[in-house]
Amino acid sequence: MSLNLTQKLIKDHLVAGDMVPGEEIGLKMDQTLTQDATGTLVMLELEAMELDRARTEASAQYVDHNLIQEDNKNPDDHLFLQSATQRFGLFYSRPGNGVSHPVHMQRLAKPGKTLLGSDSHTCANGCMGMLAMGAGGIDVALAIAGEPFYVKMPKVWGIRLSGKLPDWVSAKDIILELLRRYDVKGGVGKVIEYYGPGLHQLSAMDRHVIANMGAELGATGTVFPSDKEIKRFLKEQGREDDWIELTADKGASYDLEDEIDFTSLEPLIAKPSSPGNVVPVHELIDTPIYQSYIGSSANPGFRDFAVAAEIVKDKQIAEGVSFDINPTSRQMLQDLVKEGHIANLLQAGARLHQAGCNGCIGMGQAPAFGRNSIRTTPRNFPGRSGTREDSVFLCSPETAAASALNGKITDPRTLGMNYPAVKLPKQPTVDEHLLEEPLPYDEAKSIRLQKGPNIASIPKMDEMPDEIEIPILLKMGNNISTDEILAGGARVLPYRSNLPEISRFTFEIIDETYYERGKETVDKGGHAIVGGFNYGQGSSREHAALAPRYLGLRVAIVKDFARIHWQNLVNFGVLPLTFVNEEDYDLLQQGDVLKATDLRRKVKEGKHFNIEVKGKKQQIKVKHTLSERQIDIMLKGGIINWVKDRSVKQG
Amino acid sequence: MSLNLTQKLIKDHLVAGDMVPGEEIGLKMDQTLTQDATGTLVMLELEAMELDRARTEASAQYVDHNLIQEDNKNPDDHLFLQSATQRFGLFYSRPGNGVSHPVHMQRLAKPGKTLLGSDSHTCANGCMGMLAMGAGGIDVALAIAGEPFYVKMPKVWGIRLSGKLPDWVSAKDIILELLRRYDVKGGVGKVIEYYGPGLHQLSAMDRHVIANMGAELGATGTVFPSDKEIKRFLKEQGREDDWIELTADKGASYDLEDEIDFTSLEPLIAKPSSPGNVVPVHELIDTPIYQSYIGSSANPGFRDFAVAAEIVKDKQIAEGVSFDINPTSRQMLQDLVKEGHIANLLQAGARLHQAGCNGCIGMGQAPAFGRNSIRTTPRNFPGRSGTREDSVFLCSPETAAASALNGKITDPRTLGMNYPAVKLPKQPTVDEHLLEEPLPYDEAKSIRLQKGPNIASIPKMDEMPDEIEIPILLKMGNNISTDEILAGGARVLPYRSNLPEISRFTFEIIDETYYERGKETVDKGGHAIVGGFNYGQGSSREHAALAPRYLGLRVAIVKDFARIHWQNLVNFGVLPLTFVNEEDYDLLQQGDVLKATDLRRKVKEGKHFNIEVKGKKQQIKVKHTLSERQIDIMLKGGIINWVKDRSVKQG
Repeated sequence: MSLNLTQKLIKDHLVAGDMVPGEEIGLKMDQTLTQDATGTLVMLELEAMELDRARTEASAQYVDHNLIQEDNKNPDDHLFLQSATQRFGLFYSRPGNGVSHPVHMQRLAKPGKTLLGSDSHTCANGCMGMLAMGAGGIDVALAIAGEPFYVKMPKVWGIRLSGKLPDWVSAKDIILELLRRYDVKGGVGKVIEYYGPGLHQLSAMDRHVIANMGAELGATGTVFPSDKEIKRFLKEQGREDDWIELTADKGASYDLEDEIDFTSLEPLIAKPSSPGNVVPVHELIDTPIYQSYIGSSANPGFRDFAVAAEIVKDKQIAEGVSFDINPTSRQMLQDLVKEGHIANLLQAGARLHQAGCNGCIGMGQAPAFGRNSIRTTPRNFPGRSGTREDSVFLCSPETAAASALNGKITDPRTLGMNYPAVKLPKQPTVDEHLLEEPLPYDEAKSIRLQKGPNIASIPKMDEMPDEIEIPILLKMGNNISTDEILAGGARVLPYRSNLPEISRFTFEIIDETYYERGKETVDKGGHAIVGGFNYGQGSSREHAALAPRYLGLRVAIVKDFARIHWQNLVNFGVLPLTFVNEEDYDLLQQGDVLKATDLRRKVKEGKHFNIEVKGKKQQIKVKHTLSERQIDIMLKGGIINWVKDRSVKQG
Repeated sequence: MSLNLTQKLIKDHLVAGDMVPGEEIGLKMDQTLTQDATGTLVMLELEAMELDRARTEASAQYVDHNLIQEDNKNPDDHLFLQSATQRFGLFYSRPGNGVSHPVHMQRLAKPGKTLLGSDSHTCANGCMGMLAMGAGGIDVALAIAGEPFYVKMPKVWGIRLSGKLPDWVSAKDIILELLRRYDVKGGVGKVIEYYGPGLHQLSAMDRHVIANMGAELGATGTVFPSDKEIKRFLKEQGREDDWIELTADKGASYDLEDEIDFTSLEPLIAKPSSPGNVVPVHELIDTPIYQSYIGSSANPGFRDFAVAAEIVKDKQIAEGVSFDINPTSRQMLQDLVKEGHIANLLQAGARLHQAGCNGCIGMGQAPAFGRNSIRTTPRNFPGRSGTREDSVFLCSPETAAASALNGKITDPRTLGMNYPAVKLPKQPTVDEHLLEEPLPYDEAKSIRLQKGPNIASIPKMDEMPDEIEIPILLKMGNNISTDEILAGGARVLPYRSNLPEISRFTFEIIDETYYERGKETVDKGGHAIVGGFNYGQGSSREHAALAPRYLGLRVAIVKDFARIHWQNLVNFGVLPLTFVNEEDYDLLQQGDVLKATDLRRKVKEGKHFNIEVKGKKQQIKVKHTLSERQIDIMLKGGIINWVKDRSVKQG
């Protein structure tokens, strides 16, 4: 049977399940990627799992998200990450080396491989003929430990590219066109596979732009073929041997199909505050701007900076515009310097920042209050820029540079100049000096993790008890979000590598006494909480499960759970139960003591069982929806114990 | 009579007092300089003074200290500063244009002129044959308004430079040698004047290094002659017309004298945590380093970066070293790019930051906990790097680059290479695009100040009342610091442009109820506080006087005042009184109501007078030490009202 490329990649890595769209499948992961914002917890999880060495072909830890060092906490995190990569056999990309996605593409990506990353734009490396997907931190920790990644078999959405790209239209406009057509949920449950005669006009880095922002369509992944252009790219990187040709089988079909005719495209722009809010640039001309921002994994290529430099060459940006240049990799920055583009950008008035994500994820370059910022970044959700009431537009480097010159949103076709032909460097710089290779095992095993005063190991957690007699410490209503369980933001996030410290903020918004009351239960068998519908909605942050668990939470009984938080509770050994009879919610009060015996057998065997409310002569009926694998995880006290146990068995 | 150059500069600008060391003199200020950290309050003060237009020859507002934009507050401050410079007729140097001191030197400094700046390193421009001094924000606001600057007539310390600078020894080593000899108080009450046959070996920028760190000696200023080298420098900058020759008169003498023989110098380094803690580099070799940092106004020259680039060229920095390059001006960064030095630094592993102060003042690039950082910056006081328990060494770019290569402190003479001869650009870039000129008055007068949501005008303050009947809201002990009056730090400082908000923190450490209780007195005639000895010690921050005044503080009665806080109280119209009989301190209680009539006459005429303690049948005797000018300021309700009044009279 003829398979499309996505199906071929999946088939090659399938270790569980059937390739039926919507069914859960398990996939072997060849490579992983972590960044600093999510990576510290991943490394602490590897430590808690007592991992001896990464079981992937290549796993890399990048430092790109937070390069601002206002005190020791951030540089301490960097040193911790470096020591952890040395200990566990990972690559370590040092601060200043660049954004994970383009650096991974340049140095480690291989056609035909799978890649799992704890960053939602991991899908960018789909441009290399890989199946590349974003996931939660613990999923990536498991993949590093050699576990498969479980995901629903996606539909494959074939998009045929045809026609000729007009001047002043580039890769960003292509993905914005898809967002214009299908909005931010258009790709959910799908892998987008590009093919067709238009493809040859897109360089590997252009494809990166398009694959990257598959995340904004909600897609599981994006796949481009590995063709001559990928061969050329790998050759340039000194890695021609890593190339294999990969395309869809002749006669392969797709679950869904569409076509983009390049000839019909024009410069597009996403208005605040959604990447799906796309209109032609000419509809917004003369909108004043405060900032023009070029960079990020959504326009990481040499071309993207060079074309902007050619546009502003020998000109000056408008008064009052902050023209922020955020290079995406150090080796490319070297070429931009050598080819004169950085000189041109500076002369035009640019502020040159170090290679990294920076303002794209709100770490610097935040715009002024109520002012318009035009950016080549992938997202413009409210507040992502760092400024709460921001006004961010997304566009191509051509549109951003043209707008910087005029101080207002400008269709680059109206600049009155020829479209600059960007000359690529004959032999681009290859520089691996800041990408440290995994240590040989003999050296690695003696490495000690370097922990600054704000980094704490995840404590050992015990297995699920067979008997409980525990108080309900909190009774909550409907729609409790993970922000209410454990807030994000600048006050809390600096403690992400320090469970004892970050746990102080648990449920603080709901009940300031929870932390103290919870801590007291830790040595007495723990406690329970009760909630209503949609418990744990919102952000996927794992700390919202890990921190209450650390404070003694063993059982959560609610009307129903939000999906990701439910998964996180399972992973960290909190038993997630729902009421069989929802009216039982009304019977339970804060302070009631719940009692159950023979709990391990009940969880294992039956899906419904009774819990006694002590002193009230009441029984409430509860159930769980754990799979066999999840029951095993729960009994062991969470996924860290479960993996540790498997590692011991695998030897 | 023969005068040295310092005396000639002072004589040319003397408007009050006699040139007797230790006596107060008033000096006309030709130029001013403000930076973003201190400038927002200065601009709010100008607004409150209802200044129509700056009365100096050139006043410039730089944005260099805080370039990190994590939310809208900082960029909002930048836009406010820009609008204020437009309104008041100042130059505005946009973010990314560079550090105030070298940019001022390049574009605005003029031999023979005076310069006052709200930055302690303003003295750096003494390298241009100027009298350049740092001062508090309100002093600079007054200078912009045309008022003289009052300072004690300094002693002049002549330092003769002789001999030949050895290879691997540069300007930083010269000033470190002075710090080695005299430590951080060696220059107090003095202007350091350099002269002699060694001078010709020092470029204008080398002299900047030395003049800059006069601040670390505690000197009032540093003066270099305006000689052929300054002519060359100004010609390079396209400003040859601004040059005049300026040297000491033949036969001039100095109050103090010393000599530095260059021939005897070797690479020096200041150990943690004082710039005066200087030893030869060779005494510290093999001390491991975490960071090597090149930049700041204490090594701002093209040469400083170029020599580092030549040293690391075609080599790699040691694993685990963060090699941070902080260019000091945008126009020089362009030359460093064009001449290939940036490419060499990047290839060696550098992290290139935007032009600004950055890590020198703890805004980024903080070192990891307990790790050694070697820097070309001027200061290494504990915590200045941003990391509380830091370990910072100060040295030349040669020593910093050599140490980066080896990962440990290295005497550059041991590198086994020839001392690189740095080729200066034939015609250095002159780029004024980000230094906006003052608007013509006709345009300026219609400019409105741009205030983000976190910027608030200083409210009008009323004149000193003739009768008071006010409660004592706080009674405090000895040694109350300005940190206790109004804390600094990341929680409070973001509100420095917002008096209503920052006032919430007033006396918070001593009594959380003060803010609410104070506010209630504002419309009822205000309140008083009572303190012991050394009231208001510590940081010179003006908010510690302005914020309590805003909350109704009218009278402070203490045993004695710390000098700077006393001055600040006067400036903001709080009557500073001391007990004639110290035992009266014991009579006063929090809650007592103080009563006085005919107060304006009493303050004006007598220096001792009585205050009644209501209901206690007690009188306490108090005094003040205000000068005639200060009495006038006090009666008008503070210096803002006083200047406003004078401006009206001057028309």
